[in-house]
Amino acid sequence: MIAKYELIKEEKNSKARLGKLHTNYGDCDTPMFMPVGTRAALKGLTIEQVKECGSRVILANTYHCWLRPGEDIIDRAGGLHKFMNYDGPILTDSGGYQVFSLAKSKDISEEGVKFKSHIDGSNLFLTPEKSIEIQNKLDSDFAMSFDECPPASASHEYLENSIKRTLRWAARGKKAHNNPNQALFGIVQGGPYEDLRKYSAIETVKMDFDGYSIGGVANDGESKEDMYKAIDYSIPYLPKDKVRYLMGVGDPIDIIEGVIRGVDIFDCVLPTRIARHGQAFTRDGKIHLNNNKFKEDFTPIEADCDCYACKNYTRAYIRHLLNVGESLGGSLLSIHNIRFLTKLTEELREAIKNDNILEYREEFIKRYEKVNK
Amino acid sequence: MIAKYELIKEEKNSKARLGKLHTNYGDCDTPMFMPVGTRAALKGLTIEQVKECGSRVILANTYHCWLRPGEDIIDRAGGLHKFMNYDGPILTDSGGYQVFSLAKSKDISEEGVKFKSHIDGSNLFLTPEKSIEIQNKLDSDFAMSFDECPPASASHEYLENSIKRTLRWAARGKKAHNNPNQALFGIVQGGPYEDLRKYSAIETVKMDFDGYSIGGVANDGESKEDMYKAIDYSIPYLPKDKVRYLMGVGDPIDIIEGVIRGVDIFDCVLPTRIARHGQAFTRDGKIHLNNNKFKEDFTPIEADCDCYACKNYTRAYIRHLLNVGESLGGSLLSIHNIRFLTKLTEELREAIKNDNILEYREEFIKRYEKVNK
Repeated sequence: MIAKYELIKEEKNSKARLGKLHTNYGDCDTPMFMPVGTRAALKGLTIEQVKECGSRVILANTYHCWLRPGEDIIDRAGGLHKFMNYDGPILTDSGGYQVFSLAKSKDISEEGVKFKSHIDGSNLFLTPEKSIEIQNKLDSDFAMSFDECPPASASHEYLENSIKRTLRWAARGKKAHNNPNQALFGIVQGGPYEDLRKYSAIETVKMDFDGYSIGGVANDGESKEDMYKAIDYSIPYLPKDKVRYLMGVGDPIDIIEGVIRGVDIFDCVLPTRIARHGQAFTRDGKIHLNNNKFKEDFTPIEADCDCYACKNYTRAYIRHLLNVGESLGGSLLSIHNIRFLTKLTEELREAIKNDNILEYREEFIKRYEKVNK
Repeated sequence: MIAKYELIKEEKNSKARLGKLHTNYGDCDTPMFMPVGTRAALKGLTIEQVKECGSRVILANTYHCWLRPGEDIIDRAGGLHKFMNYDGPILTDSGGYQVFSLAKSKDISEEGVKFKSHIDGSNLFLTPEKSIEIQNKLDSDFAMSFDECPPASASHEYLENSIKRTLRWAARGKKAHNNPNQALFGIVQGGPYEDLRKYSAIETVKMDFDGYSIGGVANDGESKEDMYKAIDYSIPYLPKDKVRYLMGVGDPIDIIEGVIRGVDIFDCVLPTRIARHGQAFTRDGKIHLNNNKFKEDFTPIEADCDCYACKNYTRAYIRHLLNVGESLGGSLLSIHNIRFLTKLTEELREAIKNDNILEYREEFIKRYEKVNK
C-alpha cells in the first residue's frame, strides 16, 4: 500500500492543517517533525530512544546509503526497515541535496549530475532514474523526486532553467518508479520568486504525485523572509488532499511559521547536530550546556520536559559528560532536542484543534526569543 | 549499611565459590563481572542499557572523577549514584592505578604520590587519606585502599619495599575512612612472588577490611602465568567470609581461571574498549566486525545471544555502522561484550552449583581458542 494523507481539520485563522498519514507502518499525525538518520542510523541513538521521543517517520539519506553500504546490500537485507531495524515509516530524500552540497566538481547536464564522491573522490553519476532506483531498493515508505538544489544566490534566470529541468527530471523519475509500497513526492523549487514557485508548483502538481515537497529552502545564506516567501508562494498551488513537506527545516520558530503557512511535515539534522555541540532547545531559547555556569546546576535541561534526559539527568551531569568528551552527553541532548521538536508539533496540533495557533505562536516566540535576542 | 558478602557454596573440584553481596542497592550474585564507567559514564551507553546486560555493580574511577568534575561537585549532587543516575551498587578504585599508568613525572614518597595531571600537566598530590576522602564523597558502595601499582618488570626487592609501604598506606586509609555506607577493601600486591603475596595478604587481612582485592595483575607485559600465580599465592590467605576482587581483569578465559582459583568479582574496560575497535566476543573467539567479510552477513553477532544487539541487529548493519563511523556500532558491540561477560559469570555460577566448573572450563576454552589459535 502507498501511504496516504488524510486532511482532518483546517485551522480557522491560518493555513495550518491537522492531518494523518496512513502508512504500512501505522498512522502518523501531522504536523510532524522527522529526525534524520543520515547513514541508516540516528547519530548516537538507538531506534528505541528515537521512538521514545515520540518520533514516527524518520529520514534516511539516499546519497549516503548509496555510497555506503550501497543500496544492493540494503536491498538484500530486506530494505532499510529491516537493515536498521525500524518498524516505523521511513522517508528517503533524492540524494540531490547532498550532491549539490557535499560533492565537488559537479557537472550538471540534462541527463543528470556527474560529480566526485565526497568520501574517496571517485566519479559518480546520479540521474533521476538512478535516484529512484536506489530509493526503490531502499524500500522507504516515501521517496523523493531527484531535483536540482540551487544555492540561495542563484539568479531568477538560472532558477527558471533549473526548475524546468527539475520538472523534466520529476517526470522521468515518476516513470522509472517501481515500488508498490512507496509513495513518490514531487518537489517544488523556485527560490524566493513568486512566479517561479507558482509555475513549479502547478507543473509538478499536474504530474499527480503522492505528496509535495517544498525544496530549496534552508540553504546557506537564505534569509528567513525568503524561506517564508518560498512557502507562501508554493502552498496555494498544492492540493489539499496531499501531504506537504518542507525539506531541511528544524528551527522551532520556522516549524511554527511553516505550519501556520500550511506545511505538514519537516525534517532537519539541527536537533542532533546542535546536541553534539552541547546545545539544547528550551522554551526560553537555546542553552549551551558546555557553559561553566551549569557545573553545579542539578536541575534538568527543562523542568517540565518529559524526555528521557530530563527525567533522569541534570544539567551538571550533562555538562560534565560534554566536558570530558563522553558521547552520552550528546546523545542525551539529541534525545531532548528531538523530543522538544516533536512536543512542539504535538502542541501545534492541539492549537489547530483549538483554532488558536496564532496565539500559540505569539506566546512561544515571546518566551523563546526573550533570551536569544 | 556496609555491603556484606555471603558465601553460599564452594565448588567441589576447585576453589570456585558461589556468593551474594548484600548492598544498599540490592543483592548481587557472585562470581560477577563489573563494567567500567571511567568518568561516571559507561562509554556510549545509557545506564539502562548496562542494566539490560545483567550488570549489577559498576565501577567508576576515582582519579578521573577527582579531576573532572571534582569530588565536591559529585558530593553536592548527592553522590555518584544520583549524579550518574544509577540505582545499583557502585565500586570506586583508589586512583592508584591511574596515577601509576597515566600520570607522568611521578614522585613516590612515604606521604603519597606527587604527579602531573594527564589532562593539563598541573601538579597533583594523592595520598591514602586523600584517596579515601574523595571516595567517601563519591559515596560509592565499595571503596579501595590507595596502593602502589608497580610495573610487571619490578624486581623482588622493589616490590618488597612497595608492598610494605602499601600496607602502611592501607592502615592510614582505613583510619581516614569515614562513610557508614561504604565498604573498604584492602589490596594484596606482591607481583608473581609467593613470599610477597603471602606476606601482603596476611598483613592486609590483619587489618580486617570489608573485602580484599588482588592488585598488580593485568599490567602491561605481565604473562598469564604470572597472573595466575599472583592469584594462587594470594587466595589461600584471604578469609572465606569476605569477597575477593581481581582488579582489571576481563578476558573471558582469565575470568574463568580466576573464578576457579577463588575470585568473586572482576572489572575491566576490555568489553567496551575492544567494542570501540570493532571487536566482539563470541563463543568461537573474538571476531572483528570491521572485516569486509561481514558486509552481507545478515545474522546476529551470535545466533544464541540474548543481548539487545543480537536480538535486533545483524553483523552487516554493525559493520556498516563501524565503516561509516556511526558511534551506534561501538555501542551495540559494547552491549554485546558486556552481556557476553555477564552471561559467562551466570554460567560459571551455574557450574559451581553443579560442581562441574572444570568441565565447563575445558569446553569453553576448546571452542573459544579453536579459532583464535
